[in-house]
Amino acid sequence: MASPTVPLTLEGSYVLHQMMRVRWAEWRKLDPTSRAAILAEAEQALSAEPEQTGLYSLVGHKGDLLLVHFRKTMEDLNRVEWQLARLRLWEYLEQASSYVSVVELGLYESTARIWRLFGERGLEPGTPEWDQALGEELARQKTAMAPRLFPNLPPHKYICFYPMDRKRGESKNWYEVPFAERARMMDLHGKIGRKYADVVRQIISGSIGMDDWEWGVDLFSEDPVWFKKLIYEMRFDEVSAVYALFGVFFVGVRTAPSELAALLA
Amino acid sequence: MASPTVPLTLEGSYVLHQMMRVRWAEWRKLDPTSRAAILAEAEQALSAEPEQTGLYSLVGHKGDLLLVHFRKTMEDLNRVEWQLARLRLWEYLEQASSYVSVVELGLYESTARIWRLFGERGLEPGTPEWDQALGEELARQKTAMAPRLFPNLPPHKYICFYPMDRKRGESKNWYEVPFAERARMMDLHGKIGRKYADVVRQIISGSIGMDDWEWGVDLFSEDPVWFKKLIYEMRFDEVSAVYALFGVFFVGVRTAPSELAALLA
Amino acid sequence: MASPTVPLTLEGSYVLHQMMRVRWAEWRKLDPTSRAAILAEAEQALSAEPEQTGLYSLVGHKGDLLLVHFRKTMEDLNRVEWQLARLRLWEYLEQASSYVSVVELGLYESTARIWRLFGERGLEPGTPEWDQALGEELARQKTAMAPRLFPNLPPHKYICFYPMDRKRGESKNWYEVPFAERARMMDLHGKIGRKYADVVRQIISGSIGMDDWEWGVDLFSEDPVWFKKLIYEMRFDEVSAVYALFGVFFVGVRTAPSELAALLA
Amino acid sequence: MASPTVPLTLEGSYVLHQMMRVRWAEWRKLDPTSRAAILAEAEQALSAEPEQTGLYSLVGHKGDLLLVHFRKTMEDLNRVEWQLARLRLWEYLEQASSYVSVVELGLYESTARIWRLFGERGLEPGTPEWDQALGEELARQKTAMAPRLFPNLPPHKYICFYPMDRKRGESKNWYEVPFAERARMMDLHGKIGRKYADVVRQIISGSIGMDDWEWGVDLFSEDPVWFKKLIYEMRFDEVSAVYALFGVFFVGVRTAPSELAALLA
Amino acid sequence: MASPTVPLTLEGSYVLHQMMRVRWAEWRKLDPTSRAAILAEAEQALSAEPEQTGLYSLVGHKGDLLLVHFRKTMEDLNRVEWQLARLRLWEYLEQASSYVSVVELGLYESTARIWRLFGERGLEPGTPEWDQALGEELARQKTAMAPRLFPNLPPHKYICFYPMDRKRGESKNWYEVPFAERARMMDLHGKIGRKYADVVRQIISGSIGMDDWEWGVDLFSEDPVWFKKLIYEMRFDEVSAVYALFGVFFVGVRTAPSELAALLA
Repeated sequence: MASPTVPLTLEGSYVLHQMMRVRWAEWRKLDPTSRAAILAEAEQALSAEPEQTGLYSLVGHKGDLLLVHFRKTMEDLNRVEWQLARLRLWEYLEQASSYVSVVELGLYESTARIWRLFGERGLEPGTPEWDQALGEELARQKTAMAPRLFPNLPPHKYICFYPMDRKRGESKNWYEVPFAERARMMDLHGKIGRKYADVVRQIISGSIGMDDWEWGVDLFSEDPVWFKKLIYEMRFDEVSAVYALFGVFFVGVRTAPSELAALLA
Repeated sequence: MASPTVPLTLEGSYVLHQMMRVRWAEWRKLDPTSRAAILAEAEQALSAEPEQTGLYSLVGHKGDLLLVHFRKTMEDLNRVEWQLARLRLWEYLEQASSYVSVVELGLYESTARIWRLFGERGLEPGTPEWDQALGEELARQKTAMAPRLFPNLPPHKYICFYPMDRKRGESKNWYEVPFAERARMMDLHGKIGRKYADVVRQIISGSIGMDDWEWGVDLFSEDPVWFKKLIYEMRFDEVSAVYALFGVFFVGVRTAPSELAALLA
Repeated sequence: MASPTVPLTLEGSYVLHQMMRVRWAEWRKLDPTSRAAILAEAEQALSAEPEQTGLYSLVGHKGDLLLVHFRKTMEDLNRVEWQLARLRLWEYLEQASSYVSVVELGLYESTARIWRLFGERGLEPGTPEWDQALGEELARQKTAMAPRLFPNLPPHKYICFYPMDRKRGESKNWYEVPFAERARMMDLHGKIGRKYADVVRQIISGSIGMDDWEWGVDLFSEDPVWFKKLIYEMRFDEVSAVYALFGVFFVGVRTAPSELAALLA
Repeated sequence: MASPTVPLTLEGSYVLHQMMRVRWAEWRKLDPTSRAAILAEAEQALSAEPEQTGLYSLVGHKGDLLLVHFRKTMEDLNRVEWQLARLRLWEYLEQASSYVSVVELGLYESTARIWRLFGERGLEPGTPEWDQALGEELARQKTAMAPRLFPNLPPHKYICFYPMDRKRGESKNWYEVPFAERARMMDLHGKIGRKYADVVRQIISGSIGMDDWEWGVDLFSEDPVWFKKLIYEMRFDEVSAVYALFGVFFVGVRTAPSELAALLA
Repeated sequence: MASPTVPLTLEGSYVLHQMMRVRWAEWRKLDPTSRAAILAEAEQALSAEPEQTGLYSLVGHKGDLLLVHFRKTMEDLNRVEWQLARLRLWEYLEQASSYVSVVELGLYESTARIWRLFGERGLEPGTPEWDQALGEELARQKTAMAPRLFPNLPPHKYICFYPMDRKRGESKNWYEVPFAERARMMDLHGKIGRKYADVVRQIISGSIGMDDWEWGVDLFSEDPVWFKKLIYEMRFDEVSAVYALFGVFFVGVRTAPSELAALLA
């Protein structure tokens, strides 16, 4: 019976992370009245869609502020960028970094199940029958998974964001590992995540073809020590120990748009 | 019978990608009348050759605007650069990145066929007879392939651009793989591309000796999720899994020059 | 009997390193009276918590000043950042780098002991009984270790700071080494540190999920030659020789906030 | 009989590549009269030694202009730098990159021949007799090779410049390959270069101890497609496939100093 | 008999390399009288300790000027930095790079001899008797080696500076090589250096725990071609071929402080 190579995925909201740095020298030159007006305008804009746009204060020099936007389409994300760029506050910020991705559910387990069931029904991969059945199945799952695919921004106090790749080394190469092996490792990996489900909320987004790493990971928690404990424990599980490459880490503290004025006082 | 090492290639239009960032602080200092005049001048220049120069709005901090130019010669590309640099708008942009390449068709399959046919005709590689026959054959193919070698800019809403290399690792080295093996892998690779032909248009350009990576890849689609799905599926095929190295990814939304004024309002 | 994979850790103070560069051209434009007022304000702010915030003069171009902050929570660190950013002196500094971490004690030896003892008591990992017993044990150790987990800033004249990773190479991968092997290597590693205990004070902080490397190392000494001798000797012990990856090194000279005025005269 | 390890080399002109970017915002502020005067001064300076200093317009964002200087000594190169820095035009340029090297002929074949001949004459390496005979031989060759060691700037329309290294990997290490093997590979490598002699002129310069890569390569051609074809074919020969590491590539269009005024109009 | 792992080292002068770039646009705005005053002040400061502070004109874009400072302590180096920063000329320079290290003699041969002698005397490593005897021996050597540990700045016309590491690869790792093997390779390495002793003066400084590489190398010569010839020959000796990693190379021309005025005219 045929066996899959590529796991099926479901995609949901497009995601943009914007890391901004305050241009202090320019900002300080403003008189209090101008600042107040500029901040009021920014507060209003950043408060418009509180479940779709989150503001964080970044710790360390990689940026002062982090904006996380969830939107239905990539064009919507781009529209947000230009709208914010027109705010007067944007003249006093510079964009230090960003990340573009789309919320993704990787379906290793479902993929295996679908191939088994379809095989039992006598369907052949690559035939119109298979494709139609697959389309129906994925549509069904997309509806069922909608809350995870189109999440509201979690309310937790701390955020941790980092991009990652699966390694394609000369001897250790994720993309050469058989599907069943990958599925087994991803299952173990998921179990660690679920152990921390009470204290860390995860949102995984895919970024192949959209940004420089393959995935983006957002973790949300009330206590940042859980970021360390979760990732450290995962680092010993096979898929991370052998096959994960990590990019830059950002950690921030949730900030209400109404608190911006106090920060920039 | 002699067998080839280097695949034949056909070259077409020279290509320049220009990633530009808006210098917001300077731009905002202008009064509306100056802006309007500057934008009118830019719109006219960018609209002059709509099938040869495309404008995109980039998502993320790697740039605000992307220009893609196709021209007959590299000198023409260089001329475009200086002409644009003289626009008044250019004073309010800075070039964040660029890529220089030439549209390329890699002819693994034809190369094998030509060597077989020429061998059957008793021609010897390196002889004047061989070279003349080869020149005629390539000229014929160049004429036949002209629409693909000198493409108009595809009209799709989204663009994805990234540069790539073939790996030359200590144990996995594309340039040490026998021609027939490479041809077989490239054939499988091409099949995945063709599976997505309805939803993704590809333009491959070569940049060895012109820029820092070996190839540039432009993908065009009405929905950016196809960029992810196509590249993810390819990542599991042998030539990409083992031998591909990827650079930075840019993703943009097609923008008419007449829309510039709205973006920069 | 079950054996551990992940070593237990205890966490204490959150730590922020801020590497700052003087914007000389702007600073020189000020008249002496303004400078004096700005420096007086900065001196007062930097002197407020002398055991929690240290000031150093950096050697080399990576920065002119280094601030090291220890605080109870990450939110407190973030608050320090914004408070300092509001100082007038900050207009004449730029942040060249930073590092975010939390003081960490890695308990390889205790972990082995706890698993052995708990196993002898018939506890099973993952059961509520195990978790409760573990929680009590860690709470006990955290109290006992409080002086090391929440250290005052050491008073030594010189500081050396660098971040580091454990290697995850294709054939040499720390995270694939069995726990007992890692424990053995860490024990030998610790012995070298203790040999230098009279001349070098070490504070290790964990930064997985907080910054780009896995750990930060602060060394304090009255003579910087000991930094070289300690790290050189460690480089030959197995865990460093084979499994350590080092980031950028910063070296600084302790400076009282009251000396800032003389440096910036 | 003793056999060599290090190939003999002959050195000629010192070479400096300067990649310059126009500071458009500053340049545009000048009135036409000032610009004309500044350009006249620059044109005169850049025209003074046309066979020793070449001007190119770079394609892409790595720079707008490229200057290539050949001089008898490194001190002469340094003198050129300071002289150009005093031009008023230099206030409107910034140096984006540079490369320092010396024209070099690597004598693998001659080295083997000399060792064979000297051995037959009974000379021993390391003896005064050997050194004197070698000195005489190299002086003879340096005279014979003078036109290649002290070249005039080729007149071709396009230039391609890139730095490169020989790989010193853990298993593939050029500097561990026996001399005879290296000589054999360099000979094959040279044959490809000679195949393109009619369309591409090469100048190789050594930069060990002078800049960050081991060699600089300048290619000159009337058609830039030859750069791609030559380097692509070479990439399959053993010495490049296995042992070459490439830096950044620059490609430019020859520009007469008298054309500067038109470009910067 | 016990055998050593870590070679003994002797440390001498602390060394700071400062790579500076001229801020031409700002410098040109000054009138001749101001320039003359600023240069007179700088000349006086840079001439104060001619055997301890050297000035070079750098070739290429990595900097315009190089200052090399030798001082008794790291605090002295730091004091030099702040003193120079107060010069008015410093407003017209920016620091492009730097390197912090301490002159070091690595004593592979002596270490082996000392361990042999001490063993013959019945001393045990780690005992107070051993440590006392070692302290006396090192003090004796430090006195004998004082001229090499606390060198005056060599008077040669050209300088070459680069930092380097010993490789810690997955299969080729210097820090896993047995002491006797390392000693043998370092001895051969030293022989090449001595072959060039007439034309190249070397000063090696250690920078573990002080800067980002393990060692800094300064070469001084009347002809920069010797830098290339020496390093190229060394690249084929085992310790360099297999175990050396090189950083960025700087090459400069000795410049008297009194010549600054002419350069910056």
